[in-house]
Amino acid sequence: MTETSRASRAMPVVNARIYPRGGLDVLSREEVARLKDATHGGMHDLLRRCALAVLTSGSASDDPRAAQELYSDFDIQVLQRDRGIRIELVNAPAMAFVDGRIITGIAELLFAVVRDLAYTAIELGPEYAVDLESSAGITDAVFGLLRNARILRPADPNLVVCWGGHSINRDEYDYTKLVGYELGLRGLDICTGCGPGAMKGPMKGAAVAHAKQRLDRSRYIGVTEPGIIAAESPNPIVNHLVIMPDIEKRLEAFVRIGHGIIVFPGGVGTAEEILYLLGLLLREENAALPFPLILTGPTASAPYFEQIDRFLRLTLGEAATSRYEIIIAEPDKVARRMAEGVERVREHRLAQQDAFFFNWSLHVPLEFQQPFVPTHEAMAALDLHHGRKPHQLAADLRRAFSGIVAGNVKEDGMRRVEEFGPFQIHGDTDMMEALDALLRAFVQQRRMKISGQYRPCYEVRA
Amino acid sequence: MTETSRASRAMPVVNARIYPRGGLDVLSREEVARLKDATHGGMHDLLRRCALAVLTSGSASDDPRAAQELYSDFDIQVLQRDRGIRIELVNAPAMAFVDGRIITGIAELLFAVVRDLAYTAIELGPEYAVDLESSAGITDAVFGLLRNARILRPADPNLVVCWGGHSINRDEYDYTKLVGYELGLRGLDICTGCGPGAMKGPMKGAAVAHAKQRLDRSRYIGVTEPGIIAAESPNPIVNHLVIMPDIEKRLEAFVRIGHGIIVFPGGVGTAEEILYLLGLLLREENAALPFPLILTGPTASAPYFEQIDRFLRLTLGEAATSRYEIIIAEPDKVARRMAEGVERVREHRLAQQDAFFFNWSLHVPLEFQQPFVPTHEAMAALDLHHGRKPHQLAADLRRAFSGIVAGNVKEDGMRRVEEFGPFQIHGDTDMMEALDALLRAFVQQRRMKISGQYRPCYEVRA
Amino acid sequence: MTETSRASRAMPVVNARIYPRGGLDVLSREEVARLKDATHGGMHDLLRRCALAVLTSGSASDDPRAAQELYSDFDIQVLQRDRGIRIELVNAPAMAFVDGRIITGIAELLFAVVRDLAYTAIELGPEYAVDLESSAGITDAVFGLLRNARILRPADPNLVVCWGGHSINRDEYDYTKLVGYELGLRGLDICTGCGPGAMKGPMKGAAVAHAKQRLDRSRYIGVTEPGIIAAESPNPIVNHLVIMPDIEKRLEAFVRIGHGIIVFPGGVGTAEEILYLLGLLLREENAALPFPLILTGPTASAPYFEQIDRFLRLTLGEAATSRYEIIIAEPDKVARRMAEGVERVREHRLAQQDAFFFNWSLHVPLEFQQPFVPTHEAMAALDLHHGRKPHQLAADLRRAFSGIVAGNVKEDGMRRVEEFGPFQIHGDTDMMEALDALLRAFVQQRRMKISGQYRPCYEVRA
Amino acid sequence: MTETSRASRAMPVVNARIYPRGGLDVLSREEVARLKDATHGGMHDLLRRCALAVLTSGSASDDPRAAQELYSDFDIQVLQRDRGIRIELVNAPAMAFVDGRIITGIAELLFAVVRDLAYTAIELGPEYAVDLESSAGITDAVFGLLRNARILRPADPNLVVCWGGHSINRDEYDYTKLVGYELGLRGLDICTGCGPGAMKGPMKGAAVAHAKQRLDRSRYIGVTEPGIIAAESPNPIVNHLVIMPDIEKRLEAFVRIGHGIIVFPGGVGTAEEILYLLGLLLREENAALPFPLILTGPTASAPYFEQIDRFLRLTLGEAATSRYEIIIAEPDKVARRMAEGVERVREHRLAQQDAFFFNWSLHVPLEFQQPFVPTHEAMAALDLHHGRKPHQLAADLRRAFSGIVAGNVKEDGMRRVEEFGPFQIHGDTDMMEALDALLRAFVQQRRMKISGQYRPCYEVRA
Repeated sequence: MTETSRASRAMPVVNARIYPRGGLDVLSREEVARLKDATHGGMHDLLRRCALAVLTSGSASDDPRAAQELYSDFDIQVLQRDRGIRIELVNAPAMAFVDGRIITGIAELLFAVVRDLAYTAIELGPEYAVDLESSAGITDAVFGLLRNARILRPADPNLVVCWGGHSINRDEYDYTKLVGYELGLRGLDICTGCGPGAMKGPMKGAAVAHAKQRLDRSRYIGVTEPGIIAAESPNPIVNHLVIMPDIEKRLEAFVRIGHGIIVFPGGVGTAEEILYLLGLLLREENAALPFPLILTGPTASAPYFEQIDRFLRLTLGEAATSRYEIIIAEPDKVARRMAEGVERVREHRLAQQDAFFFNWSLHVPLEFQQPFVPTHEAMAALDLHHGRKPHQLAADLRRAFSGIVAGNVKEDGMRRVEEFGPFQIHGDTDMMEALDALLRAFVQQRRMKISGQYRPCYEVRA
Repeated sequence: MTETSRASRAMPVVNARIYPRGGLDVLSREEVARLKDATHGGMHDLLRRCALAVLTSGSASDDPRAAQELYSDFDIQVLQRDRGIRIELVNAPAMAFVDGRIITGIAELLFAVVRDLAYTAIELGPEYAVDLESSAGITDAVFGLLRNARILRPADPNLVVCWGGHSINRDEYDYTKLVGYELGLRGLDICTGCGPGAMKGPMKGAAVAHAKQRLDRSRYIGVTEPGIIAAESPNPIVNHLVIMPDIEKRLEAFVRIGHGIIVFPGGVGTAEEILYLLGLLLREENAALPFPLILTGPTASAPYFEQIDRFLRLTLGEAATSRYEIIIAEPDKVARRMAEGVERVREHRLAQQDAFFFNWSLHVPLEFQQPFVPTHEAMAALDLHHGRKPHQLAADLRRAFSGIVAGNVKEDGMRRVEEFGPFQIHGDTDMMEALDALLRAFVQQRRMKISGQYRPCYEVRA
Repeated sequence: MTETSRASRAMPVVNARIYPRGGLDVLSREEVARLKDATHGGMHDLLRRCALAVLTSGSASDDPRAAQELYSDFDIQVLQRDRGIRIELVNAPAMAFVDGRIITGIAELLFAVVRDLAYTAIELGPEYAVDLESSAGITDAVFGLLRNARILRPADPNLVVCWGGHSINRDEYDYTKLVGYELGLRGLDICTGCGPGAMKGPMKGAAVAHAKQRLDRSRYIGVTEPGIIAAESPNPIVNHLVIMPDIEKRLEAFVRIGHGIIVFPGGVGTAEEILYLLGLLLREENAALPFPLILTGPTASAPYFEQIDRFLRLTLGEAATSRYEIIIAEPDKVARRMAEGVERVREHRLAQQDAFFFNWSLHVPLEFQQPFVPTHEAMAALDLHHGRKPHQLAADLRRAFSGIVAGNVKEDGMRRVEEFGPFQIHGDTDMMEALDALLRAFVQQRRMKISGQYRPCYEVRA
Repeated sequence: MTETSRASRAMPVVNARIYPRGGLDVLSREEVARLKDATHGGMHDLLRRCALAVLTSGSASDDPRAAQELYSDFDIQVLQRDRGIRIELVNAPAMAFVDGRIITGIAELLFAVVRDLAYTAIELGPEYAVDLESSAGITDAVFGLLRNARILRPADPNLVVCWGGHSINRDEYDYTKLVGYELGLRGLDICTGCGPGAMKGPMKGAAVAHAKQRLDRSRYIGVTEPGIIAAESPNPIVNHLVIMPDIEKRLEAFVRIGHGIIVFPGGVGTAEEILYLLGLLLREENAALPFPLILTGPTASAPYFEQIDRFLRLTLGEAATSRYEIIIAEPDKVARRMAEGVERVREHRLAQQDAFFFNWSLHVPLEFQQPFVPTHEAMAALDLHHGRKPHQLAADLRRAFSGIVAGNVKEDGMRRVEEFGPFQIHGDTDMMEALDALLRAFVQQRRMKISGQYRPCYEVRA
């Protein structure tokens, strides 16, 4: 390896050749060729951006888009050798190296990127389109990706998924660390969306606790997707990374591998995740499944969860509250309750002879697996009235949140709103008012990225 | 598990349920279903016979056909459970169990049987016929099966393949143990055809040596195929078993994974193997490839190898002798030379950036990969004259041996000879006489299973 | 290392320098100096003979005395280096080396020899004489030696001690292998006197079974003493060796670390061991202690055990039979019963909060710890009459056997008998006759090493 | 275990019984008895205070003296059981437990406390006084304690000792973390005085780096002594703890086990440590020994090191500067230089056949091993004039610093100064002025704990 530090640039860079291990080390010539192909052409730019995100993991700026500019001449090539593949890095960030050698953990994340993008391109490419049209087919694809990423292992259940915002305040962040610490003391591993904020804090706390408990095979799993990782480097604690092909498969991965879920404060995206999960758990098919779900935050976050709680009671009914527990400012209680819940999951799987590593029994219908495209027609077709089954209402509410996020910040959605005016959402007045109040609160609490004066992108109709 | 020992039968049997591990433990529902299907229907009888061979491994009689009669009501079923598969054994030989629990090593071999038969049925079934028509396609199939069986691992080269007869005499058997011991002292692992005789002795000797050298991850790899394993239980030292779909893929597996080959005394089958390997090594494409090949036996076996040597010199020319070495009654020299040869292989692979675990560089043409069917036409078409390229001549000589074996002992071949008379083999007189002399010597030395008076199944023509 | 093979001698030899590991690798300068001292002077010849026994382990002749002649110019030196010690071997048997490097297992046994002789010289030398005069002091010395040899480990009880003759017949030897195999299948480890015959067979059988059960940290413990090891090489299966200072401490080591004992056919020495153990187990203090004791052999050995059994019933009374079980020709039953017995030991230790690795609770009185010197006075003082407490009678019977062995084959004893005539043993007539019959049977069955016509070295008096 | 949280107290407490592992698990009855004795009587209060320090490790207050008040009814007893010892904790801080079970890492530190105090009481007690009067005897005692604590291991040199103040500012603390991170990236382990500040930062940084490099057997060694640990809890990263009997043996432990030393900013104590080390390294006997020594801090600390550097040049001469390197604000350079230095140490030890785990070759004369008691006579006897050998001058300068610290803050010293007036120190004017200036700078930079107006406890004389 050669290290170059050009005078003409601010950031030192390195050229390096890396020989992958761990799953990419025993490949057939045919596979190597396909891998090489898959990482060229259309896939190459995606690979380049994801690789850069991984190589700048742990940087102060924590903004991969800045990295794209700082390392505009960075490149990655997957080359074929008889004995397997070789990865060539050109003008790679020097921060991923020490004395010219790539940091082992960074190298592992880099192999994960190549592995998952190739798997997606090769195994889930166009020729498999038909397989991916059924619910079972999609679940099998999710399973295949996770297994290929070596995330599935036949050990006792201990994986807690943590959701929450990536730009929470210091008080909230410290709280997520405390919860992670208490989880770690109880031997629980952490899975998050792999970025900063509520995705990093629990891992950091758990890592300290695992060290104290002398647990040395702990897992800090980051589950991401191409759009997210290219905008958000994995935090440096992540030691298992998997890139799912899209948001829906990422959500399914969370609920299939997690033995329980903790929700920290977040924005509208977090609200969408809560509704996704409740939309599943309130289905009759899943009624008997134990699935611990805890909403928690520090004292100052109490109003946030109270408002969410009120909204869920109003829309989904009191029954929905049996599926989650809100705990404020008691990290040890959160961990104790979660440990008990995970133990119930373990007993249930044993009784059902179900796998520990994948929640096959959870019913995820096709409508939760297919992406929702928030057109004006689709938004207008949402049916937010009392009297519907809670899980159907939850599904439509999730779509409403999803559409509003799009109308607020995503290019496609903003363009549509500009062209056709605000989305028209139909629903009962009280529900619409609660929705409106919730969103305005998010704005006030700075949980939504809004530039300039906030102007709702929707109008509610009774 | 329940143990039943019926008064009405000689052999005690056990019914048991087993949950597989190691590669069969993290399966998708789809895979479980296909696995279940693959082990039903046409495949089921093969599975049953192979499983029985494994369950009677180490028995005194060492004759799976006897086992078929002794355990005529044995059955095996692969059942589907959400968490994976379950194997049900009915009336299984009690010798595979201790206090009602299956012996771990036997269970591993059993999982290997299910795994490989399922892989063959699922991955190499009819729909892949096209892929299996090219040389590269067949090699990839061999690679896939071996990797799926976890035989390939990215460690330093140390795998020695041992060939030789399964019914050698005591003197020869003890010698194979001594050679295995000397190989084991030098940290070399053993791969054989997995049966008794020269396939067991080297493993046994190596196991003692590995224990002395405190090596605890040693590999005793048995490579077999359905026809062989059903007639020959794996010996009890084997700790990695792989069932290749046919003889040709089995031969290719040997030469792809072995870093060197030792040939002990054997019958006409062993002669065929020598010619197969020389047919490859004498090709120009393989001229630069290091591939240690040692023929060895105790003092009393010297004439056997002298005769083979003379035959090879006569037919393939003096140049062929550069590809092998004959060592008589010096086990430590055999091991030392092999260790040196393996080291040369290691250096060559490093220089070529070739894999340690699979000999991609060895050129194996399609004609060595496709089965030879010894019809009278095919036998008559063999061209055993001086002046041909050695590797072509070696290939035809191998076919001649193969046909003669068939004419002597295989049902198909014997029927053909009965119907159409002896095979007509065309070749130069000296070569034909040498061939004849070699075969007669095998008969005299009782290396061929012939019932009654030996009557050649062939006639030689100049 | 340099290998020399002199033309002038039959046996090839090697000079080598070895740097110890495993307990001899982190020493203070003071300790290194004492170790060097301890292995010089008076200790040096003992060290030399023990080292030679270890270096010829596994040789065909199996007779270290022959080795002393074959390798008369062999020498070993322990040298001091700042970083620890270095062992220099001069004219060492080449069979312990492969390509000039010492075999790892042999090296470990060699370090064990140095370690134990040094421990004995340094920690149990003259200045500790006082500590070794009390029963507790001797037990602590036994403990210290075993711990220093890393024999004691805080794991579940699974150590079976096997006693029996070193020159048993083939039938009996094969039987000890079968028993070892069945013990090994059940995860039990083996401890013996470390020589051939009944000391090797169980280890060999267990090693095969452990491999089948994929158990890879199995222990084959040899417990010996200087007089024995110098006359009897450790068998090549032994992977933990400890040299106790004398016979009595060796016997105490067996009963302190074994969780059960199996007795195979043997000579008068084996009978002495049985009486030693029953002398302990029949004491009131040990009445509640579970201690599985099984006497076993093939069908042909049944008369041997019947005679022993009769002798024990006659002398110690029927009650003694509750402490042992005789099982003939059922290796699996032996192992099953032993496994059950070891489980009872485990439960008892747990209930008593006693250590798993050392049987502190077993009462071993000083008279069993101090050597018995068979003078004519001592033999005449034995009190072999009915009416004594069984454990006292057992103790005196053991002494009688010990004296007779000495009178028959040990130099000291033979000289005394020659000088003063036969020992006079006093006891009840029936007991004396039974003793006499037992000893004559041993002679007939060739279980005693007698040269020429057998002439009893004792006379019995009522 | 039972957890009690009394209403009447602020701090929740736990009663628990703990069975030790790791070195305290295989003990003889005699040893258990001695251990029990050693932890009673005079030793008991010390044990109680050290245990409490360990049980409150990681607490926010970080002040064991506060802990003594908060947990005034805490007690610890070492009880004897046949199978070993049991530790009973009464009213122990609940923070060391999770759901009633002690945190594994805390338990390990607790066992370390019992182990080391017992070792000191038993092995270094009054009866060994004679052995401890020679330099070699003291070094052997240091070795024995470290080995018993399992600190010495025969692996490649990689242990960096970090010295510096425990109450440094945030800027300096963050810098120590960065240096630790860069050391950790290069696979180096950390050893410190085990408290907060510069003793914690390097461990914290290294832990993050070790995780990134997937190194999982890293060592964070804390070396302390009874007086220090009772006043300063081990920081929560420490995973190996050893309590040396006094300050001098603690200093010798550092220089014997460290393969290099880094000095961060600190107070007069740190200056004393620098002079201790230079006093050794400037001796002729140690001239050829490689021993990397780096003084480093962030940019703002540059003046601190400049002043130290000037003082060393003035007093010990320019030659002294060849023994250390000052690096400001370049953490990666510090680590790179240290890695190079450690490599030189490795090569030197190999060449000398010296141990990797203990620096036997370093000459530490008796005067550095015996405590210096700063009486007025001793202080007046110091000879701080130019012309003396540098190492002698360094030794006297170290004593001067030591005395001044005592006169400033230690009870004994302060009492003496109060009674007899300031110490009279004799030396050359320039040296005395430099000394004075250095100390005043420490005061200004708040590196000395001085209450009220600073009044020097010494007067300098030419």
